[in-house]
Amino acid sequence: MNKITLGLTLGLTLACLTLSGCSAPDNGEDSAEGNVDLIVYGDTVVTMDSAMNIFENGAVAIDEGVILAVGSAADIDAAYRANDTLSGDGRVVMPGLVNGHSHAAMTLLRGVADDLALMTWLQNYIFPAEVRFVDPEFVRIGTELACWEMIRGGTTTFVDMYYYPDTIAEVVESCGMRAMISATVIGQRSPDAEGADDSLIKGSGFIERWKDRHPRIRPIFGPHANYTLDAEQLRATRDTALALGVPISIHLSESPFELQYSKDNYGKTSIEMLDELGFFDVPVIAAHVVWPTETEIPILAERKVGVIHNPTSNMKIASGISPVTAMLDAGVRMGLGTDGAASNNDLDMWEEMRLAAFLQKVDRMDPEVLPATTVLRMATSGGAEAIGLGDITGSLEPGKRADLIQVLFEDVHHVPTYDVVSHLVYVSDEQDVDAVIVDGQILMRDQTLLTIDTERVRSEANALARSIGIELEERNR
Amino acid sequence: MNKITLGLTLGLTLACLTLSGCSAPDNGEDSAEGNVDLIVYGDTVVTMDSAMNIFENGAVAIDEGVILAVGSAADIDAAYRANDTLSGDGRVVMPGLVNGHSHAAMTLLRGVADDLALMTWLQNYIFPAEVRFVDPEFVRIGTELACWEMIRGGTTTFVDMYYYPDTIAEVVESCGMRAMISATVIGQRSPDAEGADDSLIKGSGFIERWKDRHPRIRPIFGPHANYTLDAEQLRATRDTALALGVPISIHLSESPFELQYSKDNYGKTSIEMLDELGFFDVPVIAAHVVWPTETEIPILAERKVGVIHNPTSNMKIASGISPVTAMLDAGVRMGLGTDGAASNNDLDMWEEMRLAAFLQKVDRMDPEVLPATTVLRMATSGGAEAIGLGDITGSLEPGKRADLIQVLFEDVHHVPTYDVVSHLVYVSDEQDVDAVIVDGQILMRDQTLLTIDTERVRSEANALARSIGIELEERNR
Repeated sequence: MNKITLGLTLGLTLACLTLSGCSAPDNGEDSAEGNVDLIVYGDTVVTMDSAMNIFENGAVAIDEGVILAVGSAADIDAAYRANDTLSGDGRVVMPGLVNGHSHAAMTLLRGVADDLALMTWLQNYIFPAEVRFVDPEFVRIGTELACWEMIRGGTTTFVDMYYYPDTIAEVVESCGMRAMISATVIGQRSPDAEGADDSLIKGSGFIERWKDRHPRIRPIFGPHANYTLDAEQLRATRDTALALGVPISIHLSESPFELQYSKDNYGKTSIEMLDELGFFDVPVIAAHVVWPTETEIPILAERKVGVIHNPTSNMKIASGISPVTAMLDAGVRMGLGTDGAASNNDLDMWEEMRLAAFLQKVDRMDPEVLPATTVLRMATSGGAEAIGLGDITGSLEPGKRADLIQVLFEDVHHVPTYDVVSHLVYVSDEQDVDAVIVDGQILMRDQTLLTIDTERVRSEANALARSIGIELEERNR
Repeated sequence: MNKITLGLTLGLTLACLTLSGCSAPDNGEDSAEGNVDLIVYGDTVVTMDSAMNIFENGAVAIDEGVILAVGSAADIDAAYRANDTLSGDGRVVMPGLVNGHSHAAMTLLRGVADDLALMTWLQNYIFPAEVRFVDPEFVRIGTELACWEMIRGGTTTFVDMYYYPDTIAEVVESCGMRAMISATVIGQRSPDAEGADDSLIKGSGFIERWKDRHPRIRPIFGPHANYTLDAEQLRATRDTALALGVPISIHLSESPFELQYSKDNYGKTSIEMLDELGFFDVPVIAAHVVWPTETEIPILAERKVGVIHNPTSNMKIASGISPVTAMLDAGVRMGLGTDGAASNNDLDMWEEMRLAAFLQKVDRMDPEVLPATTVLRMATSGGAEAIGLGDITGSLEPGKRADLIQVLFEDVHHVPTYDVVSHLVYVSDEQDVDAVIVDGQILMRDQTLLTIDTERVRSEANALARSIGIELEERNR
């Protein structure tokens, strides 16, 4: 199939109306004229394109991992024959969710300790468990567990920051998700490095190994924060990222502790400090950003910093309430994230959507702020833009990679349905997700994971957790 | 079986250790020595009794609708033979959830309009839909839909306030739930009355019809609020409730609008006004209580007002953040509620638990406040006490009515499990609930509803919603 055939074949209600809007797939052996790998149907197809096109009785045609066309099922059926189809009965099709900030392997520490002051939680539970247990095997099992949970819940892309990034990348390659994987740079001994210099060297190695290795995987730098790295170490990370041509993800302006630390140690706020270091010359994905000042918000917008809001984590560990609405109004690129499961305690992006909306409404005392469509955008196309992948994922548009999900609308909480977008934000759960496709590959079908041996992962995770639980109990007795 | 036999038979790890703690069931025909109607097993049994007893490999023996004993499965098996059993593999057993404030039939209006200023939402959507559509048929279908959703999600008891309470009561009687059903008293024309006097008369009739009619159903008065009823109407409702010997549920101190209205019209706050009216001489279930002052909180504690916190509704329609921690510290009896699905948009008590914890933590900037156990208590035993049913439900203790649920812990978000209570509050969802028992009757088994024809309800709800949607669209065009 080529662009011209495609353009001529499609009806007027197809989203792919201009030839330039349609990406021509490589003509693989099964990509004969009109033949495509997969058609995904939906009673409703929510594209999340810039016009917020929504198709009733819609469909998405996919070939060679690319979205060829989005439109009414009748038009798609007239234009294509599919090697495989996913029925749309009772289902809504939408882009896969983009989790902009996670520490995936920390699923192994979910619920190990809760409701504690931050330093007690970190020093008595999280750090001891990490020092003692985090090795490539922990990271492999924890990341597999996280990918299982994320795929099950409809997340197709995530930005991760943890240790042993090669292991994370191997798991992502194998399970079929899309990810940006940060090599953590941190100014103290960590599970995989001896300090800032060592972690920067090892991180550079990881990035060089993975930079062009797999189209679904982007290696990036993850300098932890400006309270775990000094100005010189941050500058070195920025320089290396710039030299290697990769983005950075970092915790930024997260907590009152960080605010105070930054003021005490640098005489300025974290955002001011990083800006003066030229940090934002590199594409930056900034997690949290709870405490930006009025003068800092325009900096974030102007420097095109992608800000990832993590409402559950910000609430559960009492970091504060991020001025999301003010940042959106200023044009800041914003996405949503779960943070690690140790402070969440799950990787449920549906809950992040609801919490983002609810928290802004009550904080601003205005039920009109952060309406459902805006939140859904943050979790999909907006999040993809914030992390720098807006050209390839986050919406259902011809030419983008085929990252999409089907959500079952048959649960009692969907009855009745006046407005699909309202339900997606205010009632749908992880367990409503029925099918997940990334890069054209079906990762979950009829709620069955196809790329992860879930029973093996469950068994390995439980075994490891038993050891961790016993050790922490002895330690804190 | 009698008290003495029971006491002698049970092992030391049983919760029923003293003869006086065990309620003797009536000796029905199938209640032979050691024979009981049902044993519910659980890998873990979380009793929510005052000592927070938790049994690993536990069980609950039930006969004639009453909990006979709670303890280790081995001890229960040694003491009883059951006519029916529910396997505990991969399951946690706990008391059913208590939803302290709902407008059940408003499930039919979920998602009809969101993200609007309160008055636009009410005047352009909710009130017109109610005036036009709320009749006994609407209430029957909407309440059935709500009971389906609540049973599915593990709620066993709810406090409702809506119109046509006889219809609500008939649905509750039929579906097997436990409920306190408020006859709404409101100072304006409503779907079922011409104004305050008429609604008070009709409400009295409902209460007289249902007062001792069914052990699972308690008819109560529901004066709407002090901005929809004047002082005289409120006093008349209080007098009638006192004369009929029934509690009252009311919206109280919900919004800045109410605060201002009360000050403008009565020269005092809502809580002061009701206290001066002698309102709290009647057992009162107060929904919301977002804006109590420091001097009002002790009044709520002293007058034993049951306060129902509705975090989702308070956030979504921007009512404010209730000082839950301060009220708990002052000894106020507190439960949780969903409010109506029109402002939620579901009836998910798991989400209310999470939001209650998260919102207090971030509001107080202290991750230690409202820990998981406290929140779980608010959703079970604490909620039951707040609504005046603490003697019969809310915990798994011998002598209480058998209102309990099984929660499947096999979903990926439960892997691994370090702490069952943490997971119940921070990760479990409606869709994890596997079995629901109220008054000894199994209402849901293996996630299948046994007392509601769900496909009929789905079809009737969808048909009614189509009419509502068309009319509102025409009206707001």
